Amino acid sequence: MKSFIKICLPAFLLTVFTACSRAPQVKDFDAFFDKLIALEQAISILTWEMETGGAPEGAMEARSKTIAALQAERFAMITSNEMRGFFKAVEAAQKRGEADEISLAIYRTTKREYDKLMVIPADEYKAFSELTAYAFITWSEAKESNNYNLFAPTLQKIIDYQRKFVEYRKKAGLVYANPYDAMLDDYEPGMTVAILDPFFDDLRSNIVPLLSDIMANGKTIRNDFLERNIPIPIQSEISKLLMDTVGYDLNRGILKESEHPFTMGIGQNDVRITTHYYGDKFFSSFYSVIHECGHAIYEQNVAKELEGTILDTGTSMGIHESQSRFLENQIGRSYEFWQGIEPDFRSVTGNYYNDVTLQQLYEAVNIVTPSLIRTEADELTYSLHIMVRYEIEKMIFNNPNLTAAELPAIWNQKMQEYLGVTPPTDSEGILQDIHWSFGEFGYFPTYALGNAYAAQIWNAMKKDVDIKAELKELKFTAINDWLRKNIHSHGSLLTPAQILEQFTNEGFNANYYIEYLENKYRALYGI
Amino acid sequence: MKSFIKICLPAFLLTVFTACSRAPQVKDFDAFFDKLIALEQAISILTWEMETGGAPEGAMEARSKTIAALQAERFAMITSNEMRGFFKAVEAAQKRGEADEISLAIYRTTKREYDKLMVIPADEYKAFSELTAYAFITWSEAKESNNYNLFAPTLQKIIDYQRKFVEYRKKAGLVYANPYDAMLDDYEPGMTVAILDPFFDDLRSNIVPLLSDIMANGKTIRNDFLERNIPIPIQSEISKLLMDTVGYDLNRGILKESEHPFTMGIGQNDVRITTHYYGDKFFSSFYSVIHECGHAIYEQNVAKELEGTILDTGTSMGIHESQSRFLENQIGRSYEFWQGIEPDFRSVTGNYYNDVTLQQLYEAVNIVTPSLIRTEADELTYSLHIMVRYEIEKMIFNNPNLTAAELPAIWNQKMQEYLGVTPPTDSEGILQDIHWSFGEFGYFPTYALGNAYAAQIWNAMKKDVDIKAELKELKFTAINDWLRKNIHSHGSLLTPAQILEQFTNEGFNANYYIEYLENKYRALYGI
Repeated sequence: MKSFIKICLPAFLLTVFTACSRAPQVKDFDAFFDKLIALEQAISILTWEMETGGAPEGAMEARSKTIAALQAERFAMITSNEMRGFFKAVEAAQKRGEADEISLAIYRTTKREYDKLMVIPADEYKAFSELTAYAFITWSEAKESNNYNLFAPTLQKIIDYQRKFVEYRKKAGLVYANPYDAMLDDYEPGMTVAILDPFFDDLRSNIVPLLSDIMANGKTIRNDFLERNIPIPIQSEISKLLMDTVGYDLNRGILKESEHPFTMGIGQNDVRITTHYYGDKFFSSFYSVIHECGHAIYEQNVAKELEGTILDTGTSMGIHESQSRFLENQIGRSYEFWQGIEPDFRSVTGNYYNDVTLQQLYEAVNIVTPSLIRTEADELTYSLHIMVRYEIEKMIFNNPNLTAAELPAIWNQKMQEYLGVTPPTDSEGILQDIHWSFGEFGYFPTYALGNAYAAQIWNAMKKDVDIKAELKELKFTAINDWLRKNIHSHGSLLTPAQILEQFTNEGFNANYYIEYLENKYRALYGI
Repeated sequence: MKSFIKICLPAFLLTVFTACSRAPQVKDFDAFFDKLIALEQAISILTWEMETGGAPEGAMEARSKTIAALQAERFAMITSNEMRGFFKAVEAAQKRGEADEISLAIYRTTKREYDKLMVIPADEYKAFSELTAYAFITWSEAKESNNYNLFAPTLQKIIDYQRKFVEYRKKAGLVYANPYDAMLDDYEPGMTVAILDPFFDDLRSNIVPLLSDIMANGKTIRNDFLERNIPIPIQSEISKLLMDTVGYDLNRGILKESEHPFTMGIGQNDVRITTHYYGDKFFSSFYSVIHECGHAIYEQNVAKELEGTILDTGTSMGIHESQSRFLENQIGRSYEFWQGIEPDFRSVTGNYYNDVTLQQLYEAVNIVTPSLIRTEADELTYSLHIMVRYEIEKMIFNNPNLTAAELPAIWNQKMQEYLGVTPPTDSEGILQDIHWSFGEFGYFPTYALGNAYAAQIWNAMKKDVDIKAELKELKFTAINDWLRKNIHSHGSLLTPAQILEQFTNEGFNANYYIEYLENKYRALYGI
């Protein structure tokens, strides 16, 4: 067991405590950053409210306009003279050897965004922000009515903007070996097609044969109880049990319902999650809650010293996703977790799973079934869903003539090719994800990266913590302490590569992930 | 019956439609005002969320900081060079005869605030904003634990700031015959002690004898059923019935619960209200909902042409309160309203009031009982509660040595003097209202003004609409159309005095209110 003091004062924080002696010229910008953070928090809360049913239905358009105006102001701040003044102050302090670690990290993250944004004309960015603030509504209507044509014109506009923005970046001298790299880098700094192509090749060449083997030779797993109708109040009780068990602090958090589960971090003292309850898909919300708790605990456990700075959040989407995947899959789908939670689980679910053994529960939540919906996909085929999106996004940015209208056909063809299933409706196909409505291309690959990072985390953590023994007793203190020390506390002070390097001593390596899948699923299916 | 077209196109809007031809120099400031409005809306929504339990408990401090930062930015905008540029552009357009009515009204309202704010140093205003953003939490804790000492130091700071701000204004040349006028003018432009002293004298000299007469000679009104325990789901159903009946548009609105009922207008398409359910005070929430609907319908019915401008809200707190009071008292406590709503009321409340006749219901909701809590006060004694607050606030600003610590004793003494009751606890006394925690001195008198305006509205409306006949059939269309045409649609385009002048042809006159109280309560009590 680590002591609390040691965890709260990792080595890097010794420099943080000198933050009070930050160069005065840098400290002059504190009010500027307070305002920037306040704008970001306001945007988050207005978005949260719209997506969780907190605002009146008829107010959606007005609230989208509000968000767009706040985003325009945030854009103006990122590209302002005052921001340039901050850059100069940090650069000068650095030359004098007076720059502290926090200021340098703030410089790194803002300068990165500044360089990308400066190349986009302000009016175009404002129009894009307004478009993507509204697009969620159109997407939602299109998905509900299974009418892709309703969403296609909006998606086309979003694609056109992003393609144009990549061109602006290239013209300004930002170098991308592949145009899609410009998008990838937004969510995982330094990520490229050159890294991801072999990663996905690797996964494909290992998972597809493994999947075939399972389908052909694997034992049959009992699944008749997976679609039992479980009353929402019981599902809600399970949510509480899970949040309490894994260490999500509800004093600084809240759970609401939304169309698509998500986590909203608004500083370490305000980290909110959502889920979506389906009567006949009990384990959908079950694993959504664990997944979002992984994101949320990351945000809640950032070092106190980073509160109120823009570093008070996870460092990248890939590392973020590693936290949610680690908790959802490595932990939440392990046999030992089910051993630990079984008594509470049975107490909350009453008679609903009386006829199901622990082993059957464990097997069922790991059942492999090539399917249509990414968020409902099993752990093994999940990355194939990501591969479909990765390849389509890569096409969008490498084939300027490709239109939004053509995408459903491509989507369906790839789903057939990789997963052997064709979506009967676009709602179950290309319309299933919210991401593109936000303009978020390049986001999906971070989900697959998160899976690979998560396997590296397990491998590193098990040297310090007897993870399986902890899980059997449903203890999360040592696990969360390890994550806090090695990952969470750093917030955005360190880059993803630095964090990975520190706890792995080798950097990104997908082998642990492939090995993990091989071992787990061959044992599970007896092949 | 007015036709819809006529109502939507009152005379003043003919000039509004020429807004597109606004002087280009004025139109240049559209983005500036979009940002100002977005900041105000974000502040409103963050406040709403905190007060209706939408944010995590542990996030309160962080959210208060966010609100303070947004308010600081709003302050910076109001007092900015760009705002001065707008003033110059409007003044120049006016000289050329090109200034449209909307621009002139925006000029009037912003210039008014500018002149007041410019005299306050920015850092002091920021500290005050931060203080009053937090103070709600301290007040709430103090009220809950009946511990005035917990709140007193905060209240003292708020008082000190406001006193200092009045001094700043006076030094800058703003003229106030009485220092308290500076506060009054914030909520009701042009309101002064010179107008309010005789108004309250008038009320006192008429209501106190009337009250004595009722207490001594009035018949006994049955009240045994007022504190019956009514299940919250039934109270919630009644809320829905009332909101639906009076014409509050729930597509552009939402009802939540909070400690103290309030209305939050965030533009005409997003107007939210709260209530507070007490098991044994059914009519508390009943009349809170009607009251807040009066505020909300005002905000929802501002002319479409004013949407997205800072004029898209009620013109003053007094006029605002006239809308809530008109709906709550003139309408909602009339015999005819009870005739109209009786069938629905009985259907929702089931057997709970089976033994109570219509006449008994009408009498009970109008029962006169000198009591402790303003928000629970009857229509007749309500203004006496306001008088207590008016006199204390006047003392605060006229006696610089008066401290927050001395206020509970003064409060209790005045309550005894005017209402014949002494609060047994500060929670039921000086701690009952949220207003001072927001720094809102000068606000309370607008409640009494609203009562007086409401009587003038009834007097004017009855010339065009057979109000009693409409109410008997529970019809609100003609009533709301009249209010929309004469008051609501104007938003903040006209001043309170202009609105009052237009529909009364005489301006403010408290006689209608006194006459209304005399007639109603003498009849009710048979004296």
